[in-house]
Amino acid sequence: MNYDNRPIGVFDSGIGGLTVLKHLVRLMPEERFVYLGDTARVPYGNKSAETVQLYARQCAAFLCQHDVKLIVVACNTASALALEDLRMHQSIPVIGVIDPAARASIGATTRGHIGVIGTRATIASHAYENSIRSQSHRTDIAIHSVACPLFVPLVEEGWLAAQATHLIADEYTRVLRQDGIDTLVLGCTHYPMLAPVLRELLPDVTLIDCGECTAAEAKSLVAPCEASESAPSIVMYVTDQTPAFASLAERFLGFAVEQPQRVSLDHVLDPQEDA
Amino acid sequence: MNYDNRPIGVFDSGIGGLTVLKHLVRLMPEERFVYLGDTARVPYGNKSAETVQLYARQCAAFLCQHDVKLIVVACNTASALALEDLRMHQSIPVIGVIDPAARASIGATTRGHIGVIGTRATIASHAYENSIRSQSHRTDIAIHSVACPLFVPLVEEGWLAAQATHLIADEYTRVLRQDGIDTLVLGCTHYPMLAPVLRELLPDVTLIDCGECTAAEAKSLVAPCEASESAPSIVMYVTDQTPAFASLAERFLGFAVEQPQRVSLDHVLDPQEDA
Repeated sequence: MNYDNRPIGVFDSGIGGLTVLKHLVRLMPEERFVYLGDTARVPYGNKSAETVQLYARQCAAFLCQHDVKLIVVACNTASALALEDLRMHQSIPVIGVIDPAARASIGATTRGHIGVIGTRATIASHAYENSIRSQSHRTDIAIHSVACPLFVPLVEEGWLAAQATHLIADEYTRVLRQDGIDTLVLGCTHYPMLAPVLRELLPDVTLIDCGECTAAEAKSLVAPCEASESAPSIVMYVTDQTPAFASLAERFLGFAVEQPQRVSLDHVLDPQEDA
Repeated sequence: MNYDNRPIGVFDSGIGGLTVLKHLVRLMPEERFVYLGDTARVPYGNKSAETVQLYARQCAAFLCQHDVKLIVVACNTASALALEDLRMHQSIPVIGVIDPAARASIGATTRGHIGVIGTRATIASHAYENSIRSQSHRTDIAIHSVACPLFVPLVEEGWLAAQATHLIADEYTRVLRQDGIDTLVLGCTHYPMLAPVLRELLPDVTLIDCGECTAAEAKSLVAPCEASESAPSIVMYVTDQTPAFASLAERFLGFAVEQPQRVSLDHVLDPQEDA
């Protein structure tokens, strides 16, 4: 068997990507991971494509300094807007969360009615729609997309079961119920935290967690690390030490992590030179 | 009369500061204004003091390049965390929104029970509490502070009168009703948009709009522009051209503005050199 002991790099605009990291660690417990959360500029979901591409390039460049063997873009917005751009600039494999989740939704749908929820930027990019269309030859698939910008702040505040959250989710999903979707892609890494509310509102709908699908794809792409007693290891970096990080990280990841190290991305890649 | 035809500089993390600019324009229609919204890094309210100070210094340095006669920090978080730091680095007057609003709340309170609502960072800084205490000799003033992190996304989504917004506002203000406040400082530039909901929940409470108080203070600090046919003039800059800007700006400002110009702050002030 071939081994590759280099770490896997994972980045997100903030802490949402930890729901992806959780599945990566579960599926590949022998690996080493370097996680970067761009907490100084979070969120990406309401910013322009140009700005998200610049930020994503800086995040990827930082991970490459750690000699990673694979970059996982654990952020739907960055996957939607910056993946092609990143692939052009990197010699190692780069995967996003959208293609794996789109593929899973094609496999899961029964009547061909797939719903997609995400940030404004993800939905406006039509990335899921394009990915589903390019990966399926079925002509009877209908895709229904809804931007749910209030879900991220509700999750970050921990209002997972509040009546207000239920009302907002009810409002967002109304059109999806009317459209009779049978499968729903949770197209933002924060949304798996709202799965209980969504299951209540859409009881017969299969929910697709992009983190789960992406971890399976990541595993298929790289030669594994050799078994080690210290595995799995996670080194965490953030661009801002925010007071809420530790408690949110534990909630998203399911276990506690060491205090992340703060880094600056300003000088990682000079946008003037690279343009 | 002395005149000073230089513009007034106003900055905010994004568009919230436009509620302050609205009052500045109303009160000083003869002035020229340069507004900067740091939309590429918005919001500031959940970031660390160190990061907010760096961003605020870059915003102020950008405005100084436009030869402004006064800088208005039209952002509660930046006023709470970065005002002293900015004053140390600038030779022109710099005012924030907190001291004027704190002073107005002292004048307005009848029974001495003042409530303050704001972002997590503003509330955690105790800036309003410190400002009220330092400006009033009354020993019977009680200050009740509540962080309301969901209000900004609700306002930006335009959910101003939704049932969910009412529920969330009811939850946030419950302790303020229990404490019997008679005056409430809207300690975030987005919150005046929620005044109708707050008035319903707190019918006998005087609401303090920090933009209104700050505009009055700004007027008292500078020599005016000479009357001109083109006044008032507003030049708008943003660090990211976000799709929602134009419609949000009009909603916050009360009138339409020209498309803002996009600028980068990365090279305005090098944090390495300034540290």
